[in-house]
Amino acid sequence: MSLSSYFTPSPGGDTAFTVEAPKIKFGIGSLKEVGLDAKGLGMTRAALFVDPKIMGTAPFNQVTEGLQSAGVDFTVYDAIEVEPTDTSFKAATAFASEGNFDGFISLGGGSTMDTCKAANLYSTYPDDFLAYVNAPVGQAKQPPGPLKPHIACPTTFGTASECTGIAIFDFVEMELKTGIASARLRPALGVLDPQVLKTLPAMVVAANGFDVFSHAFESLTARPYTHREAPADPSKRPLSQGANPYSDLACLQAIKLVGGNLVQAVNDPTDENYEALMFAGMLAGIGFGNAGCHLPHGMSYAVAGLVQDYTAQGWASNHPLVPHGISVIVNAPAVFRFTGDACPERHLQGAEAMGADISDAKPEDAGALLADRIIEMMKATGIPNGLNGVGYSEEDLDKLVDKAWPQQRLLVNAPKSVSKDDLRGIFVDAMRYW
Amino acid sequence: MSLSSYFTPSPGGDTAFTVEAPKIKFGIGSLKEVGLDAKGLGMTRAALFVDPKIMGTAPFNQVTEGLQSAGVDFTVYDAIEVEPTDTSFKAATAFASEGNFDGFISLGGGSTMDTCKAANLYSTYPDDFLAYVNAPVGQAKQPPGPLKPHIACPTTFGTASECTGIAIFDFVEMELKTGIASARLRPALGVLDPQVLKTLPAMVVAANGFDVFSHAFESLTARPYTHREAPADPSKRPLSQGANPYSDLACLQAIKLVGGNLVQAVNDPTDENYEALMFAGMLAGIGFGNAGCHLPHGMSYAVAGLVQDYTAQGWASNHPLVPHGISVIVNAPAVFRFTGDACPERHLQGAEAMGADISDAKPEDAGALLADRIIEMMKATGIPNGLNGVGYSEEDLDKLVDKAWPQQRLLVNAPKSVSKDDLRGIFVDAMRYW
Ligand SMILES: NC(=O)c1ccc[n+]([C@@H]2O[C@H](COP(=O)([O-])OP(=O)(O)OC[C@H]3O[C@@H](n4cnc5c(N)ncnc54)[C@H](O)[C@@H]3O)[C@@H](O)[C@H]2O)c1
Ligand SMILES: NC(=O)c1ccc[n+]([C@@H]2O[C@H](COP(=O)([O-])OP(=O)(O)OC[C@H]3O[C@@H](n4cnc5c(N)ncnc54)[C@H](O)[C@@H]3O)[C@@H](O)[C@H]2O)c1
Ligand SMILES: [Zn+2]
Ligand SMILES: [Zn+2]
Repeated sequence: MSLSSYFTPSPGGDTAFTVEAPKIKFGIGSLKEVGLDAKGLGMTRAALFVDPKIMGTAPFNQVTEGLQSAGVDFTVYDAIEVEPTDTSFKAATAFASEGNFDGFISLGGGSTMDTCKAANLYSTYPDDFLAYVNAPVGQAKQPPGPLKPHIACPTTFGTASECTGIAIFDFVEMELKTGIASARLRPALGVLDPQVLKTLPAMVVAANGFDVFSHAFESLTARPYTHREAPADPSKRPLSQGANPYSDLACLQAIKLVGGNLVQAVNDPTDENYEALMFAGMLAGIGFGNAGCHLPHGMSYAVAGLVQDYTAQGWASNHPLVPHGISVIVNAPAVFRFTGDACPERHLQGAEAMGADISDAKPEDAGALLADRIIEMMKATGIPNGLNGVGYSEEDLDKLVDKAWPQQRLLVNAPKSVSKDDLRGIFVDAMRYW
Repeated sequence: MSLSSYFTPSPGGDTAFTVEAPKIKFGIGSLKEVGLDAKGLGMTRAALFVDPKIMGTAPFNQVTEGLQSAGVDFTVYDAIEVEPTDTSFKAATAFASEGNFDGFISLGGGSTMDTCKAANLYSTYPDDFLAYVNAPVGQAKQPPGPLKPHIACPTTFGTASECTGIAIFDFVEMELKTGIASARLRPALGVLDPQVLKTLPAMVVAANGFDVFSHAFESLTARPYTHREAPADPSKRPLSQGANPYSDLACLQAIKLVGGNLVQAVNDPTDENYEALMFAGMLAGIGFGNAGCHLPHGMSYAVAGLVQDYTAQGWASNHPLVPHGISVIVNAPAVFRFTGDACPERHLQGAEAMGADISDAKPEDAGALLADRIIEMMKATGIPNGLNGVGYSEEDLDKLVDKAWPQQRLLVNAPKSVSKDDLRGIFVDAMRYW
């Protein structure tokens, strides 16, 4: 009984993978402990980044009361931009630089956690804004030392930003989404209290759920680690190692939990749905942190970056945006029709975990079957109908392809190689699903 | 769809659990990278602890050649005692104290890794031997600061010592096994190369495999985290939190891999068996690191500590010993007959994962069914027939009970409460299985 035939050795391919999980606390009531956790991490004066919609809610009160009773001084910052930009990162940095803080706490979605990571970085090691930004846009400089401790408390469940060393923003003048990536940006602790999801707008639940699914399924179908070139030096092994037996385990379970809970969570949620989805988001975060995403996420940066005037219900934003989870899932059915033949057994496994009946399925139907199940769930949760649904038409194809093609780090993690024509074909197929 | 009905809330019970995984590298060839890993951790002069049976083998050469080409100086120490004692820990400390090392590497089984952990501790922060030893035997003092970096390279697959902050030894004059436990003892990196298992004697494979099974199944059936009293302060949450959704996932997969590979690995091993079992050992290590063991391990300390003249084939030891995995599994069938009614669904799940047919099983048969499957596998792998098989008889019952009863930390982690009479009854039932 082997681990999986997906990991057959290849000449020159890597033979090892690494396993690591971020430090997470999970469970109802865990926000009440943040004050003592902050004290335990040595914080005496914390910058508390809060999503404006969370200000004054029960989770906010739990965190602030905990800080007070633990004797940790704090200042609140809630000028968070939803899907942050270079401008909003800079404003947050100015706040953090003035406050003389010895620790950071974020309470919000990916937008809030990422803003907090950036403010921590730039206030601790000031530099040109482009210095730390991913190449080729920026210089991809690594922070020269450890950042201040950061406790990340998500109030959404999709991004797993609490698990990662990534902060994503919209570089407005360049019409692209990019980010900052370094292990030093990873929070010291993630605190996941499923009760926070009770106030999440239905469409944000839907977008987050598909983001989790896509993190997990992209990791499950990522090029196996054995088919990535072996590094000359272990320190050069990339964070995105490709699919491996450890990420497989976390990701398959995450997909099962999304398949079993998402439609209900959007339409008629229970506490159990929230708990299961938040746990799924964490598992997918562990999985894609070890394995890496591929095409749907690679394409999403173009879909989000080129937005013209689309606005989504549920997002409190002052600029047009295609929210992250939506910008990912509109590509997914078309992608999996394309990748299905590269590893049909994994596409069938994913379809079954999402709730499809695969009893009569043939390997050659795998991609289509999964796509059909995703489309069914998109309809049941009110997700826009493909790229058309978020404002794109055939006329935008060149721009979309040109913007997505440079995301080679993600594209090469797909289970088969992708030419520029392939990519165009997938965008064409993603225009409209029903 | 809830995470599991096993985790129903209880009054005053905890509501949160933590998730963390040690840093591990897994795969064929990973030992060749240890030199560069050591350099990356800042080592210039390493103490290399090696199991005497591994001296001069391929794994030994891979590690030492890697250290040489990375320019890391090292001195080898191979006076490892199999199932170490206070005396052998002290001898290793003397070596470590004289060498002026800035890092430690261990290459061997649990005995070697644990000896290395102790030598690192006592040479870095010298103190009375009893200072750091678990209470009530010792004072359970925590190390005052971080230890030197330690890369642990197991050549067995059962103990998961590379994942834990535990070092176990035989306190000879007191006829008991005890240990040292602190998060600071956890290795900086575990390097798991399944090829090392090729030279492992068949009985050591069997003992390790059952140790993995028992770590995993004890964690799966540990008292749920929601039924342990909530801590007053998050820093007081114990390492052994009880069963939780994260450990469940790792443990169930570990049991499946043991069920599918162990008998063949003992009798007619393949490379795939070794890879699967080593991965299973790691998963179980992650699982019991978060959840904790209970009765079979609690009882094993008595079984190992009171040994008279039993010696096991395959262990290169100069003193009588009941090897760890054997001292655990001889208790297991009797334990699970006792615990079966506390969570029958989990006992059935475990039995199925080990390969039993549960299609006609009733909940009331769950414990017996699992016990039968374990006994079948014990026979198929040459494990001794219960406590009789390792030299105990009814006359030893009082001593066994008295020695196991103080292991309350483990006993209270069982899925139902255990009186001293219950414990005696389990020992009686464990005397002979066929
Ligand atoms: N850092 C990473 O690893 C990573 C990974 C994926 C995505 N992202 C980024 O994260 C951002 C998206 O984050 P997100 O999906 O978590 O959403 P978000 O933080 O952008 O929030 C979405 C909307 O929901 C509201 N909201 C959040 N929590 C709420 C709650 N509990 N109750 C009521 N309203 C609530 C917000 O005010 C906002 O209007 C994007 O910028 C994306 O690029 C980062
Ligand atoms: N630290 C922890 O968390 C932890 C957990 C469980 C057990 N333990 C302890 O670990 C010890 C048992 O460790 P173990 O089961 O790994 O066995 P071990 O280290 O005692 O080794 C068992 C025998 O196998 C030999 N050996 C080891 N690797 C070999 C290889 N690759 N080829 C040939 N021979 C090899 C050894 O020389 C020895 O004779 C006990 O002292 C036990 O109490 C520690
Ligand atoms: Zn995403
Ligand atoms: Zn054990």
